[in-house]
Amino acid sequence: MAWRFALVIDPAAAGDARTDFGDTFTPIDVAAPALSVGEMSTQRGDGIFESIGVVDRHAQEVGPHLDRLAHSARLCDLPAPHLEQWRQAVAIAAEHCPPEGEAVIKLILSRGVEHGPTPTAWVTAAEAPDNSAVRDRGIRVVTLDRGYGIDTPARAPWLLLGAKTLSYAVNMAAIREAKRRGADDAVFISSDGFVLEAPTASLILRIDGRFVTPAPNGGILHGTTQLSLFAHLEEGGSETAYETIPVTDLEKADAAWLVSSVRLAAPIRAVDGRELAVDAELTASFNRYLLTPRD
Amino acid sequence: MAWRFALVIDPAAAGDARTDFGDTFTPIDVAAPALSVGEMSTQRGDGIFESIGVVDRHAQEVGPHLDRLAHSARLCDLPAPHLEQWRQAVAIAAEHCPPEGEAVIKLILSRGVEHGPTPTAWVTAAEAPDNSAVRDRGIRVVTLDRGYGIDTPARAPWLLLGAKTLSYAVNMAAIREAKRRGADDAVFISSDGFVLEAPTASLILRIDGRFVTPAPNGGILHGTTQLSLFAHLEEGGSETAYETIPVTDLEKADAAWLVSSVRLAAPIRAVDGRELAVDAELTASFNRYLLTPRD
Repeated sequence: MAWRFALVIDPAAAGDARTDFGDTFTPIDVAAPALSVGEMSTQRGDGIFESIGVVDRHAQEVGPHLDRLAHSARLCDLPAPHLEQWRQAVAIAAEHCPPEGEAVIKLILSRGVEHGPTPTAWVTAAEAPDNSAVRDRGIRVVTLDRGYGIDTPARAPWLLLGAKTLSYAVNMAAIREAKRRGADDAVFISSDGFVLEAPTASLILRIDGRFVTPAPNGGILHGTTQLSLFAHLEEGGSETAYETIPVTDLEKADAAWLVSSVRLAAPIRAVDGRELAVDAELTASFNRYLLTPRD
Repeated sequence: MAWRFALVIDPAAAGDARTDFGDTFTPIDVAAPALSVGEMSTQRGDGIFESIGVVDRHAQEVGPHLDRLAHSARLCDLPAPHLEQWRQAVAIAAEHCPPEGEAVIKLILSRGVEHGPTPTAWVTAAEAPDNSAVRDRGIRVVTLDRGYGIDTPARAPWLLLGAKTLSYAVNMAAIREAKRRGADDAVFISSDGFVLEAPTASLILRIDGRFVTPAPNGGILHGTTQLSLFAHLEEGGSETAYETIPVTDLEKADAAWLVSSVRLAAPIRAVDGRELAVDAELTASFNRYLLTPRD
């Protein structure tokens, strides 16, 4: 990831009626210091983010990502992001991506500098890692207890379980634990035995010809890639469903994928050491679709 | 908090036998940008921290804080911090504190810049807020479900429950929730009904003349201020104990405190709206002790 671009945003009020936010963006040198040590993002993981896939300079599914940013902001009591301002920032970042190939644009909205008056915000763009091997060969996953019951998020919104916050230390630790166990990634399970999501991806299972994903009931993020892929599957006549999935149903799946904005569809070839067949043809068709321009 | 000082640290290897780490410290302007947008602390809350109280330029309980930093680093698979290097950094930060009055020194050890070779680390110092009113008048707390069972930490170390990570968005959200409910702070309860800790403090209860705190069984931090105060109480002939405390025992307490490095002992004057007497004399003696130089 040699190439990078970044833009600091002076967040506009949600009601600002302007059409051009160009003067609220300041391009910065990504290698140079840009943030103060007083940043609450860095002191407390106190902020939210989105990662948007970019293909040949086209930022994918910007609308759903911005909707989720606004949703996360509500859950975290952050000022509502001005979506048009963010859309323009994403457009500028996309223009600075390589004309061909995959990239990733990250949006970060932080609570700001400690005791400061306003949030701070920035957008970065970088070349995506080469995920072609992982999309072909697939990944091995292990299930890990997320510690919460399936009903916890509804009764304890201060746990921020449906928000994409910057407090991702547990997600990173889960991936390290998976690697320690000889796998590539993790699938979180609720403490009462229901399938949730991966640390940085959504899970899709094929069971009896239907495509099923855990219901985003507040405890997990609603994946933008999963949403897009479900729409595509439905268009092709496949049946899709959001369900509360007991962990024992993992054995009923004859194919499964982790899907996310940058890695796209990674077929799962083993769950806790149990081998799972990879449907190479279907996976390839998923990724061809996910690599086409999507809005 | 007008006055501030900060120092970036180039982390030394744990085995480095040097005695002087002066050349590994770079003082920085705290108001100026110092961190890159690639920082994993800011992108993922991926790092650990400590907050050390300072009284008249004396940094309190530096040893226990550094021990806990090392403990957090182990839990988070971060390279072991070189404790002598950090001790020297704290000493420099303390020298830059006001000669009289209270201050706070924060230590941050981040996983570093994304794809970078090493962690990044820095130390800041700032005047402490005036906590005298809160130490006298006390605080109102509400109990909030932490979502985890009391036994979860032992079986799921990837949840990092005993580590003081930078992923504190939930702790911050819990304090906002407490304020929404008309209180000042929160006390976390396990999903199976045991008392844990406050978002940024330890809890001490006085029950039948004994001083009791929830056992730091991996799910909560071992508070340095609680440790210090327990040693002081024991020296004075009081009985202290670490226990697994059911939430119903909160009603048995005839006095309670939240204790932490900077606010020190804040007497609790209400739990979920139920008034609790403040032992003004004992609280004042706690804070007199906590404001004396401690190592």
